[in-house]
Amino acid sequence: MSLQGIRVIDLTRIIAGPFGTQLLADLGADVIKIETPAGDPLRAQGEKVNDFSWYFAGYNRNKKSVALDLRNPEGMKVLKRLLKDADVLVENFRPGVLDKMGLSKDVLEEINSNLIICSISGFGADGPYSQRPAFDFIAQALSGFMSVTGEADGPPLRTGLPISDLVVGLYSALAISSRLVGRQKDDGTGVQYIDIALTDSMVSFLSFQAANFLAAGIEPKRSGNDHQLVAPYGLAETADGSVAFAPSNDGVYKKFLKVLDMEYCLEDDRIDTNAKRMKNSAIVKELFEPVFKTQTSAYWIEKMNAAGVPVGPVLSVPEVFEDPQIQHREMVMDVDHGDRGSVKMLGFPMKFSHDPCTVRETAPDLGQHGEETLLEAGYTEVEIAELRESGVLKDV
Amino acid sequence: MSLQGIRVIDLTRIIAGPFGTQLLADLGADVIKIETPAGDPLRAQGEKVNDFSWYFAGYNRNKKSVALDLRNPEGMKVLKRLLKDADVLVENFRPGVLDKMGLSKDVLEEINSNLIICSISGFGADGPYSQRPAFDFIAQALSGFMSVTGEADGPPLRTGLPISDLVVGLYSALAISSRLVGRQKDDGTGVQYIDIALTDSMVSFLSFQAANFLAAGIEPKRSGNDHQLVAPYGLAETADGSVAFAPSNDGVYKKFLKVLDMEYCLEDDRIDTNAKRMKNSAIVKELFEPVFKTQTSAYWIEKMNAAGVPVGPVLSVPEVFEDPQIQHREMVMDVDHGDRGSVKMLGFPMKFSHDPCTVRETAPDLGQHGEETLLEAGYTEVEIAELRESGVLKDV
Repeated sequence: MSLQGIRVIDLTRIIAGPFGTQLLADLGADVIKIETPAGDPLRAQGEKVNDFSWYFAGYNRNKKSVALDLRNPEGMKVLKRLLKDADVLVENFRPGVLDKMGLSKDVLEEINSNLIICSISGFGADGPYSQRPAFDFIAQALSGFMSVTGEADGPPLRTGLPISDLVVGLYSALAISSRLVGRQKDDGTGVQYIDIALTDSMVSFLSFQAANFLAAGIEPKRSGNDHQLVAPYGLAETADGSVAFAPSNDGVYKKFLKVLDMEYCLEDDRIDTNAKRMKNSAIVKELFEPVFKTQTSAYWIEKMNAAGVPVGPVLSVPEVFEDPQIQHREMVMDVDHGDRGSVKMLGFPMKFSHDPCTVRETAPDLGQHGEETLLEAGYTEVEIAELRESGVLKDV
Repeated sequence: MSLQGIRVIDLTRIIAGPFGTQLLADLGADVIKIETPAGDPLRAQGEKVNDFSWYFAGYNRNKKSVALDLRNPEGMKVLKRLLKDADVLVENFRPGVLDKMGLSKDVLEEINSNLIICSISGFGADGPYSQRPAFDFIAQALSGFMSVTGEADGPPLRTGLPISDLVVGLYSALAISSRLVGRQKDDGTGVQYIDIALTDSMVSFLSFQAANFLAAGIEPKRSGNDHQLVAPYGLAETADGSVAFAPSNDGVYKKFLKVLDMEYCLEDDRIDTNAKRMKNSAIVKELFEPVFKTQTSAYWIEKMNAAGVPVGPVLSVPEVFEDPQIQHREMVMDVDHGDRGSVKMLGFPMKFSHDPCTVRETAPDLGQHGEETLLEAGYTEVEIAELRESGVLKDV
């Protein structure tokens, strides 16, 4: 695996950080999840089977767990010892907390001058909002991302999934991986700090809406499922459901008309250019909607795709997992979890021809790898027993 | 920079691929954008200033451009020569096209057995849908991502930004970077193929909605800006606009009530547990909505944040770029483009303490680096002139 042998000390909880370190773990890194003796709150969230959260299972596969009381100075000593031989430290405390815990830049530099430290926060490590409490929803709202999602006559809408947590997790894994390439070429640059914010991550996704506003002052608007520049485009009801269709330019629009057997529309001077179709979108809808309703979704998808027109089903989550393409791509996996039975979870979106991602280890029990990890770090059995008795180390 | 010295040959166009290679370029890679003599269609899209698309500028900074006619065998020869010394090839043709162009696995293996090849496609390199025409909107619909976005009584809604193009771009940059780490440790494994699909990428974002469905059969539903598990949560109108608020658990809910001076709600047995508040969400809204309207957004944001309650503004894209935090974080940059003037574009979400991302080079003119790149690859001035005259090489 690509990141085999890379040791990551993971202080993150809930989603954003753990998703980033799950990506690193899936790519082969040796991720040590440091938990409080109470454990990552995610262990208690989501639906459980055999008293085991499948939500937790998906975000913590391929990781090891060491449960340490970091408010106890002895616990902090253990963490520092683990950091000595680590390549990466990831944390998602509020900015400044790491420092207060006793892990200031100077201290970290002294422990391991080759360490890559990635901090994930709501608004970033600096700036006027850095100390504000953060949450995915707040980042979606503040970044402008919500402002362009929703119906034209409705309010700004968040996505139903915590998109900013997921995007920031991806950015953290990318920043860390890229730096591991750099470090290998150029040792001895000292501790590298990487600072990634939920809000910045979502702002970086504003794409053409940002470019067109910055270039020409065009204020982005919400337009539901309609495109802001192309018509027709959107959802259409069929005989048995609905399909998404996106004839993205004039060439594809002609193919679209041919499949519908409506090539006479090319002569209709109310809708014979994209600009007119945007303006007369009500006419466009009136023309095409009844035709889509005459056949099933499967019919339109097959005919349109054969003609080169992007058309696809609008699937619910249960339908996604029944879809032959999604199944073929193993985007839902059945993973044996021993006594807990088989756990279904999302698959790997990065498909490598050599050394593909696999579930090497299922999500750990709280503190499952405490003894093993401390022995590796040079602790004796007696020292480990003492840490256990004093409540600094919790293991199974 | 982290990826300095890494040579990427980039055959991608439009957004998904170019966003991935822009991330690699921002991280220091030497990205050679191979364009047709007509150029990346994105050059003609988006609002222009001084006949220059700012949309194109943002996605192609830090890259070089070589314009080659790859349908001419001489053009393909040039590409093969460039691949000899490259580390990475990225492409987003439909699966099978690379092969038809003459770049089969065997040929690539022979040219450069250390090459990392990343293919981005709509549905993936294999499976029943691999040959379907793809588009961001279709991937949002098919992946189930749309099914959970939208009002409870409305249709599934796409995000206003091409989220699947952006997420797949991020995954491609991560997969490539991680593999560069692996390759350095373990040379000689032969060509590595990485296959990444828009649909798989979005399925991998189904998060707790997928986990809860797979564990307990709970079908994810749309709920607008309301949370599916926590109340109150959502948007509230204030005296001068609206705010997003997310008191994520009982502890934060108490702080929220204190700021509103409504602690008596703790005694109201219609809403004294989260479960009851979810059930009686109409009562919850009736109680809180009028109070939010008595003060400005700024007032609530300040008071709530000081108390530890996540509350933030809902910003439009123009407002985002005026926001002090976003400005502090340099998420919009003013980049000197010589004769084209100053171009505003999105900043870098990955903030590195050493060797931060910078704009080393502005987006290239079509074919701007043809001569330079071919000279580096060992072509003589005479050979380059011949390629230019025969129309194989287009440069400025």
